[in-house]
Amino acid sequence: MNIKLAFAQTNPVVGDFGSNASEIRHIIDQAADSGVDLLVFGELALSGYPLGDFSYRPDLIKQSDTALDSIVEHSKNSPRLTIVLGHISLAQTDKPSTQKSYAIAHNSASAIANGRVLATYHKMDLPNYDVFDDWRNFIPGTNEAIFEVSGHKVAIAICEDIWTQSDRGRKLQQEGVELIVVPNGSPFEHGKARQRRSAAKNFAQGVPIAYVNLAGGQDELVFDGGSFFLDGTGREIFSATDEVGLHLVGSDTQSKPSEQEQLWRVLRTGLRDYLRKTGQQKVVLGLSGGIDSALCAALAVDAIGSENVLGVALPSRFSSDHSISDARHLAENLGIEFRIVEIDQAHRAFESLVGSSGLAGENLQARIRAVLLMAISNREGHLLLTTGNKSEIAVGYSTIYGDSAGGFAPIKDIFKTDVWRLARHCNERAGRELIPLSSIEKPPSAELRPGQLDQDSLPDYQVLDRILRLLIEEGKTLSEIVSSGEDERTVFEIDALVRKAEWKRSQAAIGTKVSKVAFGRGRRVPLTTRFENL
Amino acid sequence: MNIKLAFAQTNPVVGDFGSNASEIRHIIDQAADSGVDLLVFGELALSGYPLGDFSYRPDLIKQSDTALDSIVEHSKNSPRLTIVLGHISLAQTDKPSTQKSYAIAHNSASAIANGRVLATYHKMDLPNYDVFDDWRNFIPGTNEAIFEVSGHKVAIAICEDIWTQSDRGRKLQQEGVELIVVPNGSPFEHGKARQRRSAAKNFAQGVPIAYVNLAGGQDELVFDGGSFFLDGTGREIFSATDEVGLHLVGSDTQSKPSEQEQLWRVLRTGLRDYLRKTGQQKVVLGLSGGIDSALCAALAVDAIGSENVLGVALPSRFSSDHSISDARHLAENLGIEFRIVEIDQAHRAFESLVGSSGLAGENLQARIRAVLLMAISNREGHLLLTTGNKSEIAVGYSTIYGDSAGGFAPIKDIFKTDVWRLARHCNERAGRELIPLSSIEKPPSAELRPGQLDQDSLPDYQVLDRILRLLIEEGKTLSEIVSSGEDERTVFEIDALVRKAEWKRSQAAIGTKVSKVAFGRGRRVPLTTRFENL
Repeated sequence: MNIKLAFAQTNPVVGDFGSNASEIRHIIDQAADSGVDLLVFGELALSGYPLGDFSYRPDLIKQSDTALDSIVEHSKNSPRLTIVLGHISLAQTDKPSTQKSYAIAHNSASAIANGRVLATYHKMDLPNYDVFDDWRNFIPGTNEAIFEVSGHKVAIAICEDIWTQSDRGRKLQQEGVELIVVPNGSPFEHGKARQRRSAAKNFAQGVPIAYVNLAGGQDELVFDGGSFFLDGTGREIFSATDEVGLHLVGSDTQSKPSEQEQLWRVLRTGLRDYLRKTGQQKVVLGLSGGIDSALCAALAVDAIGSENVLGVALPSRFSSDHSISDARHLAENLGIEFRIVEIDQAHRAFESLVGSSGLAGENLQARIRAVLLMAISNREGHLLLTTGNKSEIAVGYSTIYGDSAGGFAPIKDIFKTDVWRLARHCNERAGRELIPLSSIEKPPSAELRPGQLDQDSLPDYQVLDRILRLLIEEGKTLSEIVSSGEDERTVFEIDALVRKAEWKRSQAAIGTKVSKVAFGRGRRVPLTTRFENL
Repeated sequence: MNIKLAFAQTNPVVGDFGSNASEIRHIIDQAADSGVDLLVFGELALSGYPLGDFSYRPDLIKQSDTALDSIVEHSKNSPRLTIVLGHISLAQTDKPSTQKSYAIAHNSASAIANGRVLATYHKMDLPNYDVFDDWRNFIPGTNEAIFEVSGHKVAIAICEDIWTQSDRGRKLQQEGVELIVVPNGSPFEHGKARQRRSAAKNFAQGVPIAYVNLAGGQDELVFDGGSFFLDGTGREIFSATDEVGLHLVGSDTQSKPSEQEQLWRVLRTGLRDYLRKTGQQKVVLGLSGGIDSALCAALAVDAIGSENVLGVALPSRFSSDHSISDARHLAENLGIEFRIVEIDQAHRAFESLVGSSGLAGENLQARIRAVLLMAISNREGHLLLTTGNKSEIAVGYSTIYGDSAGGFAPIKDIFKTDVWRLARHCNERAGRELIPLSSIEKPPSAELRPGQLDQDSLPDYQVLDRILRLLIEEGKTLSEIVSSGEDERTVFEIDALVRKAEWKRSQAAIGTKVSKVAFGRGRRVPLTTRFENL
């Protein structure tokens, strides 16, 4: 087979057909200049993915059709090039009659060449688990779409299609198909790169297969590129990085970063694209001197530049000396603007109104800080970052409308033990101390009362994270977790905390998903329940 | 046909198998005492509905099986009675092979008599739109389940099954079925009572049909009972109110309340059950003297009693005299505890730190109030109610972490113009002025700056609500709305406001859904988007 193949890893903005189409045309021109025969884009590259309930809107589909026409027209400029592009399309049929649905459209991909649409494929298998609502939002396709490139038959499948057991690969081979191209909108998740290859190989059944992913962040998802090509034996011939743009298949496989570096980049992309795509330039965050806010600040600097990050220390009378000095060192290391706002006067004003003791008194400080940070945010137009990690969000070790306040939560899907790891990686990749070592090494504390430590209220983070991983990401029962060797009382206490915090999480900021089960759209549980996981 | 039929409108707590089963056994005994032949419960009456991703949990299914066994055992006490009960059940098959899924269970209903399960039916049509995630959470059934009562053949369908076009009714008739019983988990929505009857009639195709609904609140849903029985001509023989408990078919049809009263009861139930089922007794709310907080307070008093409601006025230097006096009158009329907390000292403390001008200054006051109300909530264990209406939530006319703070939002799905209507109804049903007339009649104001009125920033509420209804509930495009006669600039401005507030709504408290499209789980749109609805 003699097809010069290229992958377009674009980073669309959902619904922004003008700029998405313009980026697509640009890459088409680049590919044509490089003598590419077949250029494959990701799933719904024209509209962005996921569209959510926007997929119900006839006006969105109309705008997409217009943009698609412009691409088809543009393809006349490079008559030797065939393009496979993901786009939404109005369905001619309804859902199967046993399914009432608001869906009116297919999740499609068209093969386009020299001003013509050669074939249009509609995604058949519509994922409807975790963060995916495709069965809700689309109508499934039923037919293959086969077209020719340089005399070779090429078939299309879209994303989920290759993950479900089927004998389509074999049938396509029998029909003489020599290449399967697969536009994907596949978000990053720990360990997913391997799974994608295995799914592709399993689906292709001996047919060469090109797996092309989107790149960039969309709300809580980060599409991590990593497009690849497997030959007829299932061997990987080429694999791309996470980078946006044109990737020519056949050049050397691009080297893969370490697991920590991959995670770093995903979090950076998630934050950067949320800001960029929602038209925001600057962020503000409270710097406690602790590791969570330090890591978020370092990520923000890498994502949008030190000139766009404002760190604010908001010491109370319970803040230790090192919390301010560590925050200051961090700001110096990162080269960001740093302010100190003493909260004591406001704190005393509130205490005189509602008292100071107990948990209410502790929450008071966190909420006063939120009011001040939001005032800066409102006045200066900075997005407030909330810096909670997955461990504390899981057990509700945070103050709602306090430290949980913010528009984006960069590390909400990172357990505390992984925060430490990532903080060390941050310094390693920089080749110097960005996050002060003392922030990494000191025992975690919310500093809301004298001498307070996280471990006064919570189990050791090693234990906590191990149990939370089993409970939330693996969906194990309490008895299974206890059987695995964990202390029974600890397990039950953690589970009770997790359940009690459900309502807080229902009001939490979005943040980048990196795990199988993140707190966000992919985890849908009732707030009102007395189910006891036993 | 000579079957004595009864409906059990239960109000289960999701996952609380002990108390749900005990309520079920109690109603079974009542029905047996009344000589009932066939007693029908609602959809998933044993576990509660919707279960969300709890449906993935084998331990939940096991607990359900145990509870079901207890009901089967209990049925021996009344050997002449047949019970149809909704419950989850472990599926023996997977989803169709083209659907990857985490689902392991059916949404089922079993016919039980004298210690035996006569037949088990699995819901075939799994709704996956609006608030419903059944296709995500369950595996569809494929077979009819027909059993006999007093020599008559009876078939089961579950909720969505009757809403989709099918010829099942006719087929069942051909098989000699003389009665179809339908357990439902159908949440209240404007105008739905009529639709249910039409769906039932359409499905039954001449077979008598018993439609049985759950009752009570579950998160943002309120199941409004209203079970009914249609004879073979489609004529309504019996219809129940929204009341929890046993309803004997054949007694007179229970009288229907007015539309306003129905709405009032739904909102009351939603609030009451959220509190009761999450184990909370008391609420606190800020009383501004305005109509939204007044309506919420009145609802709360009707839901949980005046002794459990605390109203707090938090005047600032911009508060008018009438705001405090109206709040006080409301509290007196309702007989609730009333406190005044002046925010000026705290306000000045913050102003000295971050200034006082502009929107940031306005937000400051709303956030100071939230800090104070949450301090009371934390200290005294009252749930904070947030009193925003659908109009202001739609356009973002609220302060995040300010007046939007709270655990439950009783009127979040009620447009402002309906708030006025409902407030007048509140006084009418009480036969006296509960909500001060001046709160109903004065022009709405947030009172965050001198002389401020809502209508300085927003179109007249009549116009706003009309446009919002078309935009959000009807999903019309801007050009369609303009064509319908609305001012173009106003329409575009409102749409821009709605889109800009999406991130705020993503962090909003839950509240009772009463419309076709509520801000909540049933409306899933991207936060990151530049789609322009044109």
